[in-house]
Amino acid sequence: MTPTLATMAGYVPITIDAHLVENIRHLIAEREDGMLLNLLADLYPVDIASLMERLPEQEARYLFLLLSDARKAEVLSELEPLWQERVIEGFSVETIADLLDELDTDDAADLVAELPEALRTQILSELEDEEEVRELLTYGEETAGGIMGTEYVVVPDTATIEEATEAVRMHAEWVDPLHSVFVVDEKERLVGQLPLKTLLLYPGRTPVQDVMQQEVITTLPHVDQEEVARLMEKYDLLVLPVVDEQQKLLGRITIDDVVDVIREEIEEDLYHISGTTGDESLGDSLLKVSRGRLPWLLLGLVGTMLSGIVVNLFQAGLQQAVVLATFIPVMTAMAGNAAIQSSAITVQGLTSGKLWESDLVRRLLKEVGVAFINGGVLAILLIGAISVLGLGGGKTLQLSLTAGSALFSVILLATTNGALIPVVLHKLGIDPAVSMGPFVTTANDILGLAVYFTIASFLFLS
Amino acid sequence: MTPTLATMAGYVPITIDAHLVENIRHLIAEREDGMLLNLLADLYPVDIASLMERLPEQEARYLFLLLSDARKAEVLSELEPLWQERVIEGFSVETIADLLDELDTDDAADLVAELPEALRTQILSELEDEEEVRELLTYGEETAGGIMGTEYVVVPDTATIEEATEAVRMHAEWVDPLHSVFVVDEKERLVGQLPLKTLLLYPGRTPVQDVMQQEVITTLPHVDQEEVARLMEKYDLLVLPVVDEQQKLLGRITIDDVVDVIREEIEEDLYHISGTTGDESLGDSLLKVSRGRLPWLLLGLVGTMLSGIVVNLFQAGLQQAVVLATFIPVMTAMAGNAAIQSSAITVQGLTSGKLWESDLVRRLLKEVGVAFINGGVLAILLIGAISVLGLGGGKTLQLSLTAGSALFSVILLATTNGALIPVVLHKLGIDPAVSMGPFVTTANDILGLAVYFTIASFLFLS
Repeated sequence: MTPTLATMAGYVPITIDAHLVENIRHLIAEREDGMLLNLLADLYPVDIASLMERLPEQEARYLFLLLSDARKAEVLSELEPLWQERVIEGFSVETIADLLDELDTDDAADLVAELPEALRTQILSELEDEEEVRELLTYGEETAGGIMGTEYVVVPDTATIEEATEAVRMHAEWVDPLHSVFVVDEKERLVGQLPLKTLLLYPGRTPVQDVMQQEVITTLPHVDQEEVARLMEKYDLLVLPVVDEQQKLLGRITIDDVVDVIREEIEEDLYHISGTTGDESLGDSLLKVSRGRLPWLLLGLVGTMLSGIVVNLFQAGLQQAVVLATFIPVMTAMAGNAAIQSSAITVQGLTSGKLWESDLVRRLLKEVGVAFINGGVLAILLIGAISVLGLGGGKTLQLSLTAGSALFSVILLATTNGALIPVVLHKLGIDPAVSMGPFVTTANDILGLAVYFTIASFLFLS
Repeated sequence: MTPTLATMAGYVPITIDAHLVENIRHLIAEREDGMLLNLLADLYPVDIASLMERLPEQEARYLFLLLSDARKAEVLSELEPLWQERVIEGFSVETIADLLDELDTDDAADLVAELPEALRTQILSELEDEEEVRELLTYGEETAGGIMGTEYVVVPDTATIEEATEAVRMHAEWVDPLHSVFVVDEKERLVGQLPLKTLLLYPGRTPVQDVMQQEVITTLPHVDQEEVARLMEKYDLLVLPVVDEQQKLLGRITIDDVVDVIREEIEEDLYHISGTTGDESLGDSLLKVSRGRLPWLLLGLVGTMLSGIVVNLFQAGLQQAVVLATFIPVMTAMAGNAAIQSSAITVQGLTSGKLWESDLVRRLLKEVGVAFINGGVLAILLIGAISVLGLGGGKTLQLSLTAGSALFSVILLATTNGALIPVVLHKLGIDPAVSMGPFVTTANDILGLAVYFTIASFLFLS
């Protein structure tokens, strides 16, 4: 459900800032309900939701209860899941069901899915759209079925333009935004699509079969939401019908849902790269944030202690020539820098679908080539720098050759790993962005140190 | 310009794979133009473009020349900029101008902007939409003006629904997708918007003023494209009108352009995090890739040699107790792990607009709190591990306390830096994602080592 055109006309977008929040809190404290209602009347539901998420829970609920039932539902669908639960807590089963009935079925199903088991069963049986919502709950959360809604306008393939227009008129209020009318045959199989524009272009008596788009791009309910996003992006679709194996229409995904999917995808990548759990939000308590981050840091500590052990194994060598320690941070950091470059390009190629399996060998060879050139240049510079600085006392030449050839080998190995690991992860069904995160970095550290000390043993200490 | 509804009906989406590319290359080699045309006739322009980008330049051009003029333009607008230049190279000024006239003005302007100065001037003077394209070229590439198009349907505020419907009919072919009709007053100022649905809902004689949305969300031409994306995302807009300071309508931005902006944004972040230049693509030559990455690696080498110098300064201390070298990689890696966690959360808060300036002090205090807890836990574990392993010979206790307190301090400093640096970058107008990249990591390495060795001097060596 969305506002009717009449109410839409009145909304004004606003920027929520600390000053506004202060004002609202003051009005709540003074119980100035009239002024609050006046203020809220002009705001978009999404802005009211943002505002509520900035208030203490009690005050947010106070604001929410001031709203009319229709607006309550609109605001509810814009709130973050945690806030949705907070707001409906304590409402009766009937009140919650009434609110959910005002939502689009996909939003209602998302909210119901978050509820405790017992409450969920009670509420489901109270819903008007019980059957649709139950159906939506059976699909995986991150699949086409999980993000589709069941609000659409459909006409039989025997209809005329006039009948299709009439169908739009009948459903206009609860299907919004409305981009297209779907056309189905007698077995409810999707056979065509009519953009609204088409309804304006042809005379009322034209059979829809004559003017509909016949090749409609569709998806199946179990398809991953990222795949759905790529499809809609590629073909610039505003709406994507979801059908079953028999082409029977099950629901539709709209472009605004896909924008959300793309955002989620970015955030997921960021979490993988940074080694965080992903459900950390700005309002979380200190302990919750700590608990979320600590496991990754612990794993990091274990990994990094393996690096320490590699250094430790080489203690006798370091004792002979402590100057070798100078290059420990050089080797670990440069391994990381080189690996993340090649992995970023590979990850992006895999995510965008532009990198194919058949390209992989050529791609890897190219990375090796790039690493040869860059590793070579960097090694020569490092050799030059060590010589100029005269590090290593009487053994400057040996030291520079050790550090130089180690740097070359480390860049070569790390660049190759950086390009290879995302591909392996992708094959295993793991998000390739993980390759840019702390695990792979730590593995590269260990490898880099092992290479460095091995070379040092041969070139410098022997 | 986009295909008419009739041709749209025939297109079939395909997956381009190595096998298909081989087939096409075979057909090109055999000059099987008839079969090629048959095959291309069924494909979406975007798929033809992807296919061309997979072919050697000569063969791609051969395929392109087979297409009708209207399809040439459609395919051209889907090609990557580099490929657009390749394809039109050698065409006459008139041919290029004819192709550009078939494109939406925003796509035409983007392509013209990439052309060499001399050619640009010649082509501009040949364009039908010369004035619009010249106007669009005056806006920054990453602003609302730079991504808007001038294809829209507009009616005066004195019009009726019937007149608005007639306007849609007249312009339907060259404005696609069409979501809304804009309503302007006698001074060409935007006063309202009519979703197509509205045209179907009301009788023909209804004045548009009575049923239009009056509060239209608009943007100014100099607004950054990321801001535009956030606005359209937040309010679920399919189209956003761009107006000047006097509310005069200049153009419109459609949701598909915004999806592209969001994708660009992700890629930019990935480049900042990985230290690559951003214009690297899978088809680039070895030398081009090397040249793009080398500067970042050189900067990395300089930075990391500073870490080396910190270690070098502490040579005398290491000589006394070479076991201290064991913890060099621990300190650098853990500084990196802790910093990237707090920066990821801060970057995401800043990018989504959910983190306000007024939140910053509280946010920083919270990060310090989290670092206290996590740093404390990790330090205790490290102390335990060193004790159990009996590292440090006779001085196990001192070593464990040194490493433990250094780890605690490093986590505290790095976590705080991680939260602080993105904010500083943001204030300076630099993309905060840079804080997750190699520079800040290297700075944390240096800091971590300095802290570690200072603590070691006091607790272990004295």
